[in-house]
Amino acid sequence: MKIQIINGPNLNLLGTREKDIYGDINFEKYLDSLYEEFDDIEINYYQSNVEGEIINKLHEVGLNYDGIVLNAGGYTHTSVAIRDAIKAINSLVVEVHISNVFAREEFRHTSLIAPNCIGSISGFGLDSYRLAIEGLKKLKM
Amino acid sequence: MKIQIINGPNLNLLGTREKDIYGDINFEKYLDSLYEEFDDIEINYYQSNVEGEIINKLHEVGLNYDGIVLNAGGYTHTSVAIRDAIKAINSLVVEVHISNVFAREEFRHTSLIAPNCIGSISGFGLDSYRLAIEGLKKLKM
Amino acid sequence: MKIQIINGPNLNLLGTREKDIYGDINFEKYLDSLYEEFDDIEINYYQSNVEGEIINKLHEVGLNYDGIVLNAGGYTHTSVAIRDAIKAINSLVVEVHISNVFAREEFRHTSLIAPNCIGSISGFGLDSYRLAIEGLKKLKM
Amino acid sequence: MKIQIINGPNLNLLGTREKDIYGDINFEKYLDSLYEEFDDIEINYYQSNVEGEIINKLHEVGLNYDGIVLNAGGYTHTSVAIRDAIKAINSLVVEVHISNVFAREEFRHTSLIAPNCIGSISGFGLDSYRLAIEGLKKLKM
Amino acid sequence: MKIQIINGPNLNLLGTREKDIYGDINFEKYLDSLYEEFDDIEINYYQSNVEGEIINKLHEVGLNYDGIVLNAGGYTHTSVAIRDAIKAINSLVVEVHISNVFAREEFRHTSLIAPNCIGSISGFGLDSYRLAIEGLKKLKM
Amino acid sequence: MKIQIINGPNLNLLGTREKDIYGDINFEKYLDSLYEEFDDIEINYYQSNVEGEIINKLHEVGLNYDGIVLNAGGYTHTSVAIRDAIKAINSLVVEVHISNVFAREEFRHTSLIAPNCIGSISGFGLDSYRLAIEGLKKLKM
Amino acid sequence: MKIQIINGPNLNLLGTREKDIYGDINFEKYLDSLYEEFDDIEINYYQSNVEGEIINKLHEVGLNYDGIVLNAGGYTHTSVAIRDAIKAINSLVVEVHISNVFAREEFRHTSLIAPNCIGSISGFGLDSYRLAIEGLKKLKM
Amino acid sequence: MKIQIINGPNLNLLGTREKDIYGDINFEKYLDSLYEEFDDIEINYYQSNVEGEIINKLHEVGLNYDGIVLNAGGYTHTSVAIRDAIKAINSLVVEVHISNVFAREEFRHTSLIAPNCIGSISGFGLDSYRLAIEGLKKLKM
Amino acid sequence: MKIQIINGPNLNLLGTREKDIYGDINFEKYLDSLYEEFDDIEINYYQSNVEGEIINKLHEVGLNYDGIVLNAGGYTHTSVAIRDAIKAINSLVVEVHISNVFAREEFRHTSLIAPNCIGSISGFGLDSYRLAIEGLKKLKM
Amino acid sequence: MKIQIINGPNLNLLGTREKDIYGDINFEKYLDSLYEEFDDIEINYYQSNVEGEIINKLHEVGLNYDGIVLNAGGYTHTSVAIRDAIKAINSLVVEVHISNVFAREEFRHTSLIAPNCIGSISGFGLDSYRLAIEGLKKLKM
Amino acid sequence: MKIQIINGPNLNLLGTREKDIYGDINFEKYLDSLYEEFDDIEINYYQSNVEGEIINKLHEVGLNYDGIVLNAGGYTHTSVAIRDAIKAINSLVVEVHISNVFAREEFRHTSLIAPNCIGSISGFGLDSYRLAIEGLKKLKM
Amino acid sequence: MKIQIINGPNLNLLGTREKDIYGDINFEKYLDSLYEEFDDIEINYYQSNVEGEIINKLHEVGLNYDGIVLNAGGYTHTSVAIRDAIKAINSLVVEVHISNVFAREEFRHTSLIAPNCIGSISGFGLDSYRLAIEGLKKLKM
Repeated sequence: MKIQIINGPNLNLLGTREKDIYGDINFEKYLDSLYEEFDDIEINYYQSNVEGEIINKLHEVGLNYDGIVLNAGGYTHTSVAIRDAIKAINSLVVEVHISNVFAREEFRHTSLIAPNCIGSISGFGLDSYRLAIEGLKKLKM
Repeated sequence: MKIQIINGPNLNLLGTREKDIYGDINFEKYLDSLYEEFDDIEINYYQSNVEGEIINKLHEVGLNYDGIVLNAGGYTHTSVAIRDAIKAINSLVVEVHISNVFAREEFRHTSLIAPNCIGSISGFGLDSYRLAIEGLKKLKM
Repeated sequence: MKIQIINGPNLNLLGTREKDIYGDINFEKYLDSLYEEFDDIEINYYQSNVEGEIINKLHEVGLNYDGIVLNAGGYTHTSVAIRDAIKAINSLVVEVHISNVFAREEFRHTSLIAPNCIGSISGFGLDSYRLAIEGLKKLKM
Repeated sequence: MKIQIINGPNLNLLGTREKDIYGDINFEKYLDSLYEEFDDIEINYYQSNVEGEIINKLHEVGLNYDGIVLNAGGYTHTSVAIRDAIKAINSLVVEVHISNVFAREEFRHTSLIAPNCIGSISGFGLDSYRLAIEGLKKLKM
Repeated sequence: MKIQIINGPNLNLLGTREKDIYGDINFEKYLDSLYEEFDDIEINYYQSNVEGEIINKLHEVGLNYDGIVLNAGGYTHTSVAIRDAIKAINSLVVEVHISNVFAREEFRHTSLIAPNCIGSISGFGLDSYRLAIEGLKKLKM
Repeated sequence: MKIQIINGPNLNLLGTREKDIYGDINFEKYLDSLYEEFDDIEINYYQSNVEGEIINKLHEVGLNYDGIVLNAGGYTHTSVAIRDAIKAINSLVVEVHISNVFAREEFRHTSLIAPNCIGSISGFGLDSYRLAIEGLKKLKM
Repeated sequence: MKIQIINGPNLNLLGTREKDIYGDINFEKYLDSLYEEFDDIEINYYQSNVEGEIINKLHEVGLNYDGIVLNAGGYTHTSVAIRDAIKAINSLVVEVHISNVFAREEFRHTSLIAPNCIGSISGFGLDSYRLAIEGLKKLKM
Repeated sequence: MKIQIINGPNLNLLGTREKDIYGDINFEKYLDSLYEEFDDIEINYYQSNVEGEIINKLHEVGLNYDGIVLNAGGYTHTSVAIRDAIKAINSLVVEVHISNVFAREEFRHTSLIAPNCIGSISGFGLDSYRLAIEGLKKLKM
Repeated sequence: MKIQIINGPNLNLLGTREKDIYGDINFEKYLDSLYEEFDDIEINYYQSNVEGEIINKLHEVGLNYDGIVLNAGGYTHTSVAIRDAIKAINSLVVEVHISNVFAREEFRHTSLIAPNCIGSISGFGLDSYRLAIEGLKKLKM
Repeated sequence: MKIQIINGPNLNLLGTREKDIYGDINFEKYLDSLYEEFDDIEINYYQSNVEGEIINKLHEVGLNYDGIVLNAGGYTHTSVAIRDAIKAINSLVVEVHISNVFAREEFRHTSLIAPNCIGSISGFGLDSYRLAIEGLKKLKM
Repeated sequence: MKIQIINGPNLNLLGTREKDIYGDINFEKYLDSLYEEFDDIEINYYQSNVEGEIINKLHEVGLNYDGIVLNAGGYTHTSVAIRDAIKAINSLVVEVHISNVFAREEFRHTSLIAPNCIGSISGFGLDSYRLAIEGLKKLKM
Repeated sequence: MKIQIINGPNLNLLGTREKDIYGDINFEKYLDSLYEEFDDIEINYYQSNVEGEIINKLHEVGLNYDGIVLNAGGYTHTSVAIRDAIKAINSLVVEVHISNVFAREEFRHTSLIAPNCIGSISGFGLDSYRLAIEGLKKLKM
């Protein structure tokens, strides 16, 4: 089983900035714990601040990966192009958010990409990613 | 650790109706699998079609349960009163939905209760409940 | 043939209050005239001011009644939960209103339940109920 | 007792096109069944695709007919002029629709003419017309 | 000097219906008083309930008349086509309304045709027409 | 003189939770001070979290009580059914709120029930109830 | 017969600025032509840039003047207070505008004061004032 | 204890105009009854139709008065400047309205000043002022 | 192959008016060039300013023509009835506009008829018609 | 070179109130520093809480001053009249705000006056005024 | 004559995915047919999923190409930056879409880039590109 | 002191295109004048048409630069991702615009990035950049 984690804009700063919202754990360190817990799954990680590169990555893995865990960051609320990319591929995509986006600004309550995802998880901190993989695992069994 | 599952309106019909959206597993049967998987957690279940009775239950368990898994069904999109009840209690509340609400009618994209929940999970079928318990477990560790 | 009439909030006051809008005939008295006219149909009547109890009744009769005549009163414009209940059952549901709701306040022009009903009748006073039964009778022939 | 049925745009195609929505019965044939059932009522029929001609007909019959059964088709949602014409005449006007307009596109949920009609019936197929005549008959008794 | 008066839908009923809003004077009778007062102006009158015929008339007179007094009735609020017709002709067009449209329903506060008219007069009863001719007279001097 | 106080959802928690917004006085204790101050008035108290039960209570007292002090809590902003119930009864109803609802979330700025109440008082803490009784007393003198 | 003309903000600059929109005639000079034409009417003129002073003037003349010609300038679109003042007085108020406000910015298409005026005239340049007096004269005959 | 009553636009006409809405008691006369009832409080009264003068008065008394009873009339719904003035001062400000503003036009349902007031009272006729003073008295005890 | 060109309101003025927007070529003259270019296709032309007559024409040709090139002019943005007519017929309908409607007023950016057309072409001047025929030709091959 | 600074409502309280937003420097004291820095420019200062007086001042200086630095305070978001006044004069007007208005309430994000100003500066505390003068100086060179 | 075709996000997947919407022809193969048909035109092709790279390409060719055929994909509905880029260049830009965007989701009905294009073609499948080149050819003749 | 200037999409064309809006000075040339005037500040310049690269640059300099002058061009109105990037860094960011965005299209009046900037300057042509540096200099003193 192969799963791709894709992090969008500003998520490269995780663990170093705005720790009150996003926590103080560096994502690379967190990845290690995921590798350990899900040692039967091939997990790959990609981060980009460029909308189009996220689309490129979705195209690249979208035919032969079982699932994609996507935190599109700010593009969640503005990108029709990523929405279309998700629809165009085969892999199941789960939308994740570290914070509870519904408890933040009004414009963060609308996700343009959610309708094409299989499911959505938000508010569990970095643990949102683990739950997404758990969920994908079950869906693929 | 004690967790209360609360199901709102029409969820008593799970497994018997609209199987294409909600699956064909009876919720009581599904509960057994949860009891088995989480044998270290006391899990209680409550279902009501009455908005006010859901509030009553939230008040009843909201001080001494560790977490609440709430699928408020149709009240998700209309109930300020349930939203207020969640704010008034101590337990962590996770919002769950069986289907991906963002892929359905426009009015289902807005959750009045989400801002007062700790997190939100939707789209994984009945497995959304299991992931919610997983998430609560980690948050309470 | 079996038909259930369900009246929602404040309709228990019919015939005693706001007679200029709703007329001065007590609904129970009106029911007698329906029993007489449709003596080949089993007609049952239920009224409740509680949203969730209306849902309970819809669930209860929704599998083995031929039709349901539903005047959801104020819940017509606010209840996603009743809308979902109508979708989840088998019986044909006809939405009725005593007054012409489109000639009243703006918020009464939108019916949340209508999309899941088979049809809608409004403005004929209590006679709206009789026409609804007439309509159901034909649809079931 | 005299009743005028007025059908608006595209309803001349009834029975020949989009049969899944509007059924496969030709309206002229259906009229025969109405004439038979209501042999004590003079029923006249008029159809036009021109908004202004519908207004002309409303003016023509609006003083000496007991009732008008109006299916304004697409003009239902756009015509202030027909709305005004209904207000300007004496006959009771009942709005009918063959399909359940509330289960179709958003813009079909708003009727500009309904506020000036005595009542509204939709979703019963061609039978909506019969119910409208039934309703008018009772109102005029 | 030549002026065309054009009355839109339902204005053929002036003086006979809804007298509380529109007064009880027949428009043809009122015209006589205009002919008398403005005996140096050729005044022609046209009324139609058909949107397209109003456009035809605007085209017909729009090149060689000095002014047009237009009461488009209900089409005032819905007709892009009449708006475009006014823009396409040479004659100065004055929009008139018998009643004060701003004191009536919300949707009557928006005029689609006003932006292409030279001016607008409403609320003076039939006298609105006289004032419009007065205004046109001065503009053409 | 007879006055009914009705408290809606979550107000049973007054004095025990969210003390920064609602204060730390238990409502039952506060009632004692009202009984003392208004010893010439029969004051009754009712609380329910169920929308329909609030309607039931309004119907029950609405014919023979002089006034009703209603804090509908979250239902203030969502309940057409309670709005209709207030219109259907004789007693004067005063809407009260403990906090200044206009200084809170946007959706709390709209009251569906206010148009059918005689008046509205908010922001004085529990003292809002006392002022409401004061106001009713004067209105009934 | 006594008529008060009231000009609102920036109209003191008439004839000296933005001549392409408002023309190049000084309002005081224009007044002379009105005095001459309507020598049987007492016409008074008042201009202020202060919203409250316009209200003061409306109160002052509103009981014993036959009519008021009001060009409220920018306050037309923002002043509930002037709207209320017009409702509170006896004199007939006619709203005038020099330019065709409907051909300008969107926000100028809504008049807060129009609903309480007897009528409205716009687009005839300074001649709008003369037509307003003409209209008032007829209404008072 | 010192309290300032401030009345905004058109409230100088109280008791003489629109008596069906505002009653027939002159405010100065009503003040006498307040002076009598609250003889331990220094009550001052100010009225102006000018938005800026109301702000001036708020600045003048806002540091050394205990409370301000403000009926901003039409400015309630349009004045950001008064809203800011209330925020900038120390005195507690109570918003009052004579009529139930929520039962009137839509635009009167929004108060721009309410969020910065301590509380709000409407619908009790002139008695709204007395209740406001009662409320302020308790808040300052 | 048979193609019908239908031009809506005001398009009879093409080549004579508003030449800066629509060009200075008379449509009949332009038709000649189309006849010449597409000499293997039977091309018919119809123009009307009447909404209902456009519907009549759509019905008339809609069963046996291969394609329809429709420039509905102002009705493009307001006519549900034409939209419904297009849905009810068999011929492929292409929407054309001479000018780039998206570069004009906001209300011209919404086409009510486009969703039922096979495609849409705008902005190429009269050449939009030629491209539409080109497109239809390919679709029918 | 002559520059007029105009401060609108509540800005007379600068330095004494809400210091966390507006700082603790008295504006008159700040003016001294401006006089010193720009000793080659004649700088005048005016403050008023009255919308109409701000318009009066704009008219007074608007023909012979080189520039105007305008902080219209709360009127920024509500005053069409000031917007019109800026358009009617010759001086270049720069809009300034002490705080970053875009980081505050939603209604402060819209400036009615900005479209007629030459430029806009906000968020630099009192220094916004200095930058505005700097900007004007360059524009006039 | 030189024409640049620019395809935006996800259009690299043409012919391999979502064939029911976009057809099953690979774009490179389709290009060959264009080269053949328009052998007198130099046609270049560029595709990118990155918004900014599309802008770069527009800048690069925008001064010396005769025309650009742009299918901006999902960026059509969200990109002000591409809109601005089109305005800043000299080449005529034609907007194309393979599917009829007006028959899809609501948010696809708005094109941010259309106002700056010369024209727009949608719904003809890949043939939309050919028609666009046809159109550009005529415009440049 | 170190300041980074970041220019967004299309601003690489400054001085060569749309000179009526943006002036005819090449930005690189303008930079020289800034270097000269602020010879005590290290000023760096970066331009990109790619949203994500602007975010990369913000991350890169956001920890050790004193200030950033950001003209995000079209991304100003659409980019949540850049808004989030500004929040995530330490440097003070000033939003600048060459033209007065508030005097242009409606959609340019909303800035998604402004709430996270320290201040905003627009309308002074290229001089907006100089004023921004002036402002940052003072804020950092």
